[in-house]
Amino acid sequence: MKVQKQISLKDFTTAEGFVGRYQHLIKDVVIPYQYKVLCDEMEGVEKSHVIRNFINAGKALRGEDVGDGFYGMVFQDSDAAKWLEAVAYALILFPDTELEATADRVIDIIAGAQDSDGYLNTYYTIKDRDKRWTNLLEGHELYCAGHMMEAAVAYYEATGKDRLLKVMLKNAECIYHHFVTEGHEGYPGHPEVELALLRMYRATGDKLCLDLAEHFLNIRGADTAFYEKEVAKRTWKVWGADPTDHAYQQSQCPVRELDEATGHSVRAVYLYTAMADLASETDDQELKKACDRLWKSITERRMYVTGGIGSTFLGEAFTKDYDLPNDTAYAETCASIGLMFFASRMLENEVKGTYGDVMERAFYNTVLAGMQLDGRRFFYVNPLEVVPGIAGEAVTHKHVIPQRPTWYACACCPPNVARLITSIGKYAYGENGNTAYCHLYVAGDTKFENGLELNCVTEYPYAFTIRYEIRKGGKELAVRVPGWSSSVTVRRGTDAGSMAEVSYKIEKGYLYLGTVETGEIIELQLDDAPEFLYASPKIPDIQGCVALQRGPLVYCFEGADNNGDILSLAIDDSEPAEAEAFDPKLLNGVTRLKVKAFRKEIPEGLYSARKLKETPCTAYAVPYYSWGNRGLNEMRVWMTKH
Amino acid sequence: MKVQKQISLKDFTTAEGFVGRYQHLIKDVVIPYQYKVLCDEMEGVEKSHVIRNFINAGKALRGEDVGDGFYGMVFQDSDAAKWLEAVAYALILFPDTELEATADRVIDIIAGAQDSDGYLNTYYTIKDRDKRWTNLLEGHELYCAGHMMEAAVAYYEATGKDRLLKVMLKNAECIYHHFVTEGHEGYPGHPEVELALLRMYRATGDKLCLDLAEHFLNIRGADTAFYEKEVAKRTWKVWGADPTDHAYQQSQCPVRELDEATGHSVRAVYLYTAMADLASETDDQELKKACDRLWKSITERRMYVTGGIGSTFLGEAFTKDYDLPNDTAYAETCASIGLMFFASRMLENEVKGTYGDVMERAFYNTVLAGMQLDGRRFFYVNPLEVVPGIAGEAVTHKHVIPQRPTWYACACCPPNVARLITSIGKYAYGENGNTAYCHLYVAGDTKFENGLELNCVTEYPYAFTIRYEIRKGGKELAVRVPGWSSSVTVRRGTDAGSMAEVSYKIEKGYLYLGTVETGEIIELQLDDAPEFLYASPKIPDIQGCVALQRGPLVYCFEGADNNGDILSLAIDDSEPAEAEAFDPKLLNGVTRLKVKAFRKEIPEGLYSARKLKETPCTAYAVPYYSWGNRGLNEMRVWMTKH
Repeated sequence: MKVQKQISLKDFTTAEGFVGRYQHLIKDVVIPYQYKVLCDEMEGVEKSHVIRNFINAGKALRGEDVGDGFYGMVFQDSDAAKWLEAVAYALILFPDTELEATADRVIDIIAGAQDSDGYLNTYYTIKDRDKRWTNLLEGHELYCAGHMMEAAVAYYEATGKDRLLKVMLKNAECIYHHFVTEGHEGYPGHPEVELALLRMYRATGDKLCLDLAEHFLNIRGADTAFYEKEVAKRTWKVWGADPTDHAYQQSQCPVRELDEATGHSVRAVYLYTAMADLASETDDQELKKACDRLWKSITERRMYVTGGIGSTFLGEAFTKDYDLPNDTAYAETCASIGLMFFASRMLENEVKGTYGDVMERAFYNTVLAGMQLDGRRFFYVNPLEVVPGIAGEAVTHKHVIPQRPTWYACACCPPNVARLITSIGKYAYGENGNTAYCHLYVAGDTKFENGLELNCVTEYPYAFTIRYEIRKGGKELAVRVPGWSSSVTVRRGTDAGSMAEVSYKIEKGYLYLGTVETGEIIELQLDDAPEFLYASPKIPDIQGCVALQRGPLVYCFEGADNNGDILSLAIDDSEPAEAEAFDPKLLNGVTRLKVKAFRKEIPEGLYSARKLKETPCTAYAVPYYSWGNRGLNEMRVWMTKH
Repeated sequence: MKVQKQISLKDFTTAEGFVGRYQHLIKDVVIPYQYKVLCDEMEGVEKSHVIRNFINAGKALRGEDVGDGFYGMVFQDSDAAKWLEAVAYALILFPDTELEATADRVIDIIAGAQDSDGYLNTYYTIKDRDKRWTNLLEGHELYCAGHMMEAAVAYYEATGKDRLLKVMLKNAECIYHHFVTEGHEGYPGHPEVELALLRMYRATGDKLCLDLAEHFLNIRGADTAFYEKEVAKRTWKVWGADPTDHAYQQSQCPVRELDEATGHSVRAVYLYTAMADLASETDDQELKKACDRLWKSITERRMYVTGGIGSTFLGEAFTKDYDLPNDTAYAETCASIGLMFFASRMLENEVKGTYGDVMERAFYNTVLAGMQLDGRRFFYVNPLEVVPGIAGEAVTHKHVIPQRPTWYACACCPPNVARLITSIGKYAYGENGNTAYCHLYVAGDTKFENGLELNCVTEYPYAFTIRYEIRKGGKELAVRVPGWSSSVTVRRGTDAGSMAEVSYKIEKGYLYLGTVETGEIIELQLDDAPEFLYASPKIPDIQGCVALQRGPLVYCFEGADNNGDILSLAIDDSEPAEAEAFDPKLLNGVTRLKVKAFRKEIPEGLYSARKLKETPCTAYAVPYYSWGNRGLNEMRVWMTKH
């Protein structure tokens, strides 16, 4: 049983504030921009062809000429799904009949691409129907189905319209028929359908969806050699993935035995999300324990300070404990989004501050860094160090692009950012019978099923006061206190005059406020002091380094603020870092930090037996999420300590 | 014209001493061991098949059944060549009729594999003669020919026997016929034949060899698209190398225009060696200038402090300026050997201390690290940091093996180390008409063409007195003073009583001693103080780090000397490092260094907002070349500075 669960997004109304402004950006810029890309109406960006693929698949089903056929990655369909999901969430936040009509038309097109048996995938429908289900390792059919199921659930919840939901229920039945009824072996190369089926189950109550999710999780890794057998049976491939690398495929053992986060980092966290969701859904303690182990494997041994995961571009994957290179990091935007999913589902098993802490870390740093401030360009890879001349240039650093490109041929991240930001309310607020939970500080009105209603007012993460106005009380409230905040002051009252500091207890990172009453105001004051961060000596790549954090924001140093040269700076941590005044004009509004530092001389040649001369100076840091918005320049999160 | 040239190896007689002991090891252990490998008589190591390949090629030529045919890499023949070359040098140092008879038999077998037109390569002769010269990009025919030419020259110089030399002259004529007379396009994918042809030219006086070397150097990069055209013409491949990556192929422009060290690092330095050799041989100033630029590109921007080159395993290649990762370095043993070749040839263009400095750095650190102290195991890759659990394990670190393996399927490095160490006299001593040069400090007797004879007595690099006893004088002597020595004391006399300090002038790193007389003794005293090394802030990967060097030896810290944990140490450079007493029992005899340090606490988790507690301690370092001889443990050259 879920100890608490995500709220329904319909119950959250966004307000102005840091996250609210991002949500406006998604609605106003990102969604229309991405729609044009999907329709191939955006000049100068990689061709998408996503909508054409669905149209052409419909033609194929009707026996018509398929025109320009299929184009793109084998998982191209999922771009439409993620866009639709983001649209659904945006419609909840910002009702818009024109956008809804557009989405309805897209859904019509998608529905038209569904085969009579419920199968839905444009790649196979257009190119070769006989290849269906023959390459689970690389084929992404179940992955695309999963994303479309998520879109269907979201669109149904947003609009009450069930056309896509019905399409995807039929699709789920088609999958069930193949894998369960007919008993064909196999599990998805890219997990996603499992977590989607669990959402479908909750939206529809259809137990087939729960059973199918459970089936895929139970069968995974039961026969570790499944992909090897699959490869032996077929004559075609997409990329030629190595079926023998079971740890990479996350099939090295049954999921309940997993104890190490391995392989493709996005696939990993999507899988673990489904595992955590099923664990709470079915009270599966063994599964819960595996999730605990995997959570620790990631967050205690394999996660960047920015909440990024995946240390290498070779397979976009986890590597080994404590191997966290800054300059060749992969730290895919989607992986940090997936880590938020996992954290949110872990919270449904156990209310513990670390889940919210990691969710925040991933969101305010890597996820937001994935998008340019204007919403028009995106990072797939989120390094912690960029040195022009090496980044994007050296053969080992080709993936570390020092400035965000427009759109990718493989465009998984941009729509993923869009759907995450527009659905942040689900991650911010949770509930169980009597208690309402605030996991993240997101301004807006929230109604809980138990009747509690509150309005959160905050300029977090740039101000550290979070004010909850109880619109309708009589129920319990619990608020997460971030692990980074060395202190918290809680004040309660009904108006400015009556607000008074109260004592409190914190349990596992949550402040339990007891019953709150209508009209009551609860105000949290968190620690606003910038902090130096130090790395475990076990991490070889950041030995002797120091980083900066203020609130949930990890900072970085960019050339733009530091005379174009970061590499010769050594940070003096003997005095605290200082926050400058919030600058609304800089980088859409940021608070810079300044620290004492020393600038080292640049000697001749590579190595010197002479100590380098150092000149005292001040160094300036900006939030990591805002880096790369001022042209090509050096960037570093971890700096040499003086 | 060469401003000075390598001595003939016949004129150097080794003595006991650091290098002499290594030469004994090569003779007593490495050469017999490698011979057994080449003959497939060594159990438990990778199959070589090298001798069988030559035998089977002979059968193929006689139209007989080729039995077990060809086995191994396309360049397998070169293992025999490098072994033979090492044998030749060993026979000069340590005459041995049995070994010479073995070598003669091997040469008979090799000669038997030569086709009637002079062609010699077992891969093509056994597998498919029609493929000859159709894949210069990957085929390694010219590379193998080059190595066999080097062996032929060495064996001729060592024994006076010209059987192999005649074979290789005929082979040179065959190559000349194809590429010059018949005018077929192309230049070698792996440079080597150019430098070998220049050695052949000097050994035989045959101008065809000089012309052919010059031809290959002149044509390289003249048509940058040559490899692309070649690939288009053929239907077979070895690995499928990308012909469009011209910088990787070192064919991005004519060699006289090169200004950046790019591509496969061994190929690069073999090419530059030939360029530098030809430049001095023909007074080609344009070529000399290109060599100067390439020298600076390597030594001022792309070289590890250990003299290792090649920052990535992706193509075993150079990457970009200042990109010098410690843990994923390639730094192939062969590449540092090639760097010594290049340095030695640069010294023939200009007598300048930096060439000797780099030669020493490469030799005493990366080259010697390439071999286990017992001569039985070898490193191909020479990282500057090894952390068990990551090294050899993470997908990005698979090449960074934390302990030396026995033999490689691709066995280029072991015999390369053998031939380098046995021929060190050529790199240590040089001459021009009136002046004898001492570039490296290697104990032994040397006769120069001008009549000067000297005996060098030293326990360098563990003692810093170098004593030259002039056996036959009347000529000038010049001795390199290493760049790392902050001072040098020079004493002259004829016996212990008459030795007196003298003043001197140093010009471009060389101490010019003027005419020395028979019976005179010259004694250099170099600085024996351990020094901390600091890296240019331009190198991102070693920001805030410190390394240790004493004399030419770069030191490293190993777990074995430091309670198994290097990562939590921070070095205090406020006081000088101290040399312990030389310990003859440790690692075949080393002087350890000790430094003040602090040991940091290991906190819970990855990151901490709390400064880590530090406990003062002493840290111990051993010479880098000796690392990895005490089982699996952590190793680091660059340490965090406190």
